Amino acid sequence: MTSLYLIRHGIAEERGTYPNDDDRPLTDEGKKKSRQVAKRLHSLGLHFDLMQTSPLVRARQTADIFGDVFNTDPLTSELLAPSGDFEQWLSWFQTWCQQHGSSRSSLGLIGHEPDLSAWAELLIWGEAKGTLVLKKAGVIGLAVPEQEAIAANCLLFLLIPPKLLI
Amino acid sequence: MTSLYLIRHGIAEERGTYPNDDDRPLTDEGKKKSRQVAKRLHSLGLHFDLMQTSPLVRARQTADIFGDVFNTDPLTSELLAPSGDFEQWLSWFQTWCQQHGSSRSSLGLIGHEPDLSAWAELLIWGEAKGTLVLKKAGVIGLAVPEQEAIAANCLLFLLIPPKLLI
Repeated sequence: MTSLYLIRHGIAEERGTYPNDDDRPLTDEGKKKSRQVAKRLHSLGLHFDLMQTSPLVRARQTADIFGDVFNTDPLTSELLAPSGDFEQWLSWFQTWCQQHGSSRSSLGLIGHEPDLSAWAELLIWGEAKGTLVLKKAGVIGLAVPEQEAIAANCLLFLLIPPKLLI
Repeated sequence: MTSLYLIRHGIAEERGTYPNDDDRPLTDEGKKKSRQVAKRLHSLGLHFDLMQTSPLVRARQTADIFGDVFNTDPLTSELLAPSGDFEQWLSWFQTWCQQHGSSRSSLGLIGHEPDLSAWAELLIWGEAKGTLVLKKAGVIGLAVPEQEAIAANCLLFLLIPPKLLI
């Protein structure tokens, strides 16, 4: 099964502190915790064949930290910005799985709430009801089926706040 | 919100090694990992107002380890044995929440798969589809609503295998 990790950006400056909300950066604590989480996941043997990130500064900075720790170069996707189009991303992901999918494949997404939780619910349950609690720098891990449709057929094997990783 | 932790028993002797499967005990590794998980959760500030355990030896031993670490005495409940009656347990839990529920209340259940995952799904989504992966000595954490019906209204904030806790 392909593994899909949905990672929320780290702690960022308060809303309203930047003229354009997209520009809000991580705080020093947010950078530190994001790096600690990335290092812990790396030490546990995780790898990423590909990382995708929202273009917003707080996500891009989190992705750069993960990219540094995992020695990979995260790609920016507009679909991971707030209110991004899940169906369009899913269509891309299905193609990616057909081309790259194997029992060891792993994709990482770095983005925002409530979108990441909602996407996870759609992948697990086919419906988003707001039932998952994903903290900043927290991680959701999904096992993606190889033979079936992806939506509503993924298994949830990990949902963890950063304090349990650092 | 009351917190509900569903904890799977640790690694036990292989199936078929005991005349009565209920008697299979934890292996030494199972005991060690269960204690490490309990200690980590304790160090993170978790507490349990009450712990309930399946009467089967592998669960009872896991519960005794948690009881030792958390300085509590887990109560045995037949409802937590394999194929235990969820609706009957839920009825008990609703009463317990009315009597003991507060923002700091915490209940721990120690039992078996696939029951614990199925119970968690019923509490989160109202339906059990086998979408959660709970490893031995793994933990599910749910936030239980105070004002609504409990089934299908809980939030999932934690799903973690032991290797991320030890």
